[in-house]
Amino acid sequence: MKHIYTGKTKDVYELEDGNYLLKFKDDVTGVDGVFDPGANSVGLTIEGAGRSGLKLTKYFFELLNEKGIPTHYVDADIENATMTVKPAKPFGKGLEVICRYRAVGSFLRRYGLYAEEGQPLDAFVEVTIKDDERQDPPISEDALDMLGILSKAEYKVLKELTQQISGIVKDELAKKGIELYDIKLEFGRTGDDQQIILIDEISGGNMRAYKDGKYIEPLELEKLFLS
Amino acid sequence: MKHIYTGKTKDVYELEDGNYLLKFKDDVTGVDGVFDPGANSVGLTIEGAGRSGLKLTKYFFELLNEKGIPTHYVDADIENATMTVKPAKPFGKGLEVICRYRAVGSFLRRYGLYAEEGQPLDAFVEVTIKDDERQDPPISEDALDMLGILSKAEYKVLKELTQQISGIVKDELAKKGIELYDIKLEFGRTGDDQQIILIDEISGGNMRAYKDGKYIEPLELEKLFLS
Repeated sequence: MKHIYTGKTKDVYELEDGNYLLKFKDDVTGVDGVFDPGANSVGLTIEGAGRSGLKLTKYFFELLNEKGIPTHYVDADIENATMTVKPAKPFGKGLEVICRYRAVGSFLRRYGLYAEEGQPLDAFVEVTIKDDERQDPPISEDALDMLGILSKAEYKVLKELTQQISGIVKDELAKKGIELYDIKLEFGRTGDDQQIILIDEISGGNMRAYKDGKYIEPLELEKLFLS
Repeated sequence: MKHIYTGKTKDVYELEDGNYLLKFKDDVTGVDGVFDPGANSVGLTIEGAGRSGLKLTKYFFELLNEKGIPTHYVDADIENATMTVKPAKPFGKGLEVICRYRAVGSFLRRYGLYAEEGQPLDAFVEVTIKDDERQDPPISEDALDMLGILSKAEYKVLKELTQQISGIVKDELAKKGIELYDIKLEFGRTGDDQQIILIDEISGGNMRAYKDGKYIEPLELEKLFLS
């Protein structure tokens, strides 16, 4: 297999059958040595972080595949912290799709004039551009279409899939008494028909989860949820 | 008449017949003594700035009224720098609606990964919240609806009116060899049926206009356009 990309928290290899292998690293994003999933730079290395993220990812992607949701997931090897995935191309240079159930984080920083901290939001979907230099700005459906990143028809699919997937994750967490506040997903296009599928991962680093009103750290979430 | 509000660049009085009188001041927004229509604080006072803004506003609002576009405009008194308007309530605590024909300003700062400076944009509409403290953040149709600021049906009307009005201003400027890059409008609801109408003003301070590739300062625009 051929090493083709070194990401902040994953390395990517191309396999001979056309699939890809993602190697989950123990490097996590953060600032000043503190783990912060929203940060754009690698902040520290935590022993076991890669496997921990992969365990949750494997759990959720297998569940989504069972439910017929299209994803890039093929299988996972927890021991080696690797996941085999189907090839998919990101939209433009990469988008993040956020689904919000409560007003926290950047939503509150932007719309604090109209929203209170923790206020329920109705599976609100927003898209941001992956652009470290410009602090991942939010972008509207119209702008995505005009700039040739995503058509209006694709936006509709993306929004529906996001609400469907986020709802499944929310319901799963709720079974363990954990409340999902928001979650960040990534999608790509695959195959000749350019089908939109879920890519990347679903782990503590992609979401804000709370238990009894207290935020659960990403690595803690895996222990709490999979125990 | 009764003084009811002191704005950054206008004072507002309530008239006995239920209409309002806007007094255009010579105070203009800016930073460090330099006129900047996008700034959120009053930067300096320019003799005649109020009358200059009103002259363009009168010109464009009378043209829009002739064309059947609903606005708050009743009449204007250039000598006294006052404009009589119908009562209207802003959306939430105030929104700005921007129509863009070329990629400059905050659009470029946000989407520079996908757009080049000055690239043509197809009458792209975006809405920002008037919130000095949070630097007037952009907000999507979905968020406006969810936060109870603007319904989806109202958003559709707002977008259509914005493109219609901006197109009229663009065509007028073009007659004098001036190119409109972008324009910022404000709307409100009026009457028992809560009709959406154009409010505030249309002057050099609300738009970026260029001639022969060179930006035209707000006060210069009035002289160049109305001469």
